[in-house]
Amino acid sequence: MSSTSLDIEEGLAFLPKFDADGLVTAVVTDAGNGDVLMVAHMNEEALAKTVATGEAWYYSRSRQKLWKKGESSGHVQRLVEMRVDCDQDAVWLKVEQQGAGACHTGRRSCFYRAVPLGQIGDIRLEFRDGDKAFDPNAVYGKRG
Amino acid sequence: MSSTSLDIEEGLAFLPKFDADGLVTAVVTDAGNGDVLMVAHMNEEALAKTVATGEAWYYSRSRQKLWKKGESSGHVQRLVEMRVDCDQDAVWLKVEQQGAGACHTGRRSCFYRAVPLGQIGDIRLEFRDGDKAFDPNAVYGKRG
Repeated sequence: MSSTSLDIEEGLAFLPKFDADGLVTAVVTDAGNGDVLMVAHMNEEALAKTVATGEAWYYSRSRQKLWKKGESSGHVQRLVEMRVDCDQDAVWLKVEQQGAGACHTGRRSCFYRAVPLGQIGDIRLEFRDGDKAFDPNAVYGKRG
Repeated sequence: MSSTSLDIEEGLAFLPKFDADGLVTAVVTDAGNGDVLMVAHMNEEALAKTVATGEAWYYSRSRQKLWKKGESSGHVQRLVEMRVDCDQDAVWLKVEQQGAGACHTGRRSCFYRAVPLGQIGDIRLEFRDGDKAFDPNAVYGKRG
């Protein structure tokens, strides 16, 4: 029996709506200061493991595999709260980010560049909070 | 000439990476309190209009059309800052939400239900900030 919009939007059943690739979008914010740390994706298994353990698991589209955040770096994300959106195709994870940062480039957040507004045509980005919090080569090993 | 990972991650050129459907993910937070208001998608035109005007435009996957947030409801989103993530397939919009709310269900945020942690199997959601900030029938008209 398929669920109605009313079930999905106003009900209490968790009915995640996976896309054609079997994924939902996960937005991750720092429970301390509200900054968006990263955007990632979860398949059904990643979502179930995250809910069960209270630590963030994702599905890597590029590597096509399940991964636990922090499995290489130690930079685990402990969930303070998890929410789902109206149509249940996105989740919001408020986390305590362990270790120096969430981004594989070495920054605390993946969003370390601003897009200046009021412009048309070629846009030049501006670094914001762009200092590296850790050395990615030391944490992940050299990558090609 | 294709861009390298170094160009994309460490450069100042805005090189949005649209997916197979021509979309990037947009995470929208309340510039006042940091809450995630919604997750939406932008095609090239929506992104360009948002950057040029400083107000949020999106692409609706269900309606397959460009839309300006607030065009029906008046609940426009004025950008305080826009950022792009490391691999440039997601943008973060910090906005001043005009009007009562961002969610078509009548709430301020689309994320008005929590997913309880530490559970396995059928999950029951819990309302959080679930009170309606406006009457969606009055704002949008009745929808089937």
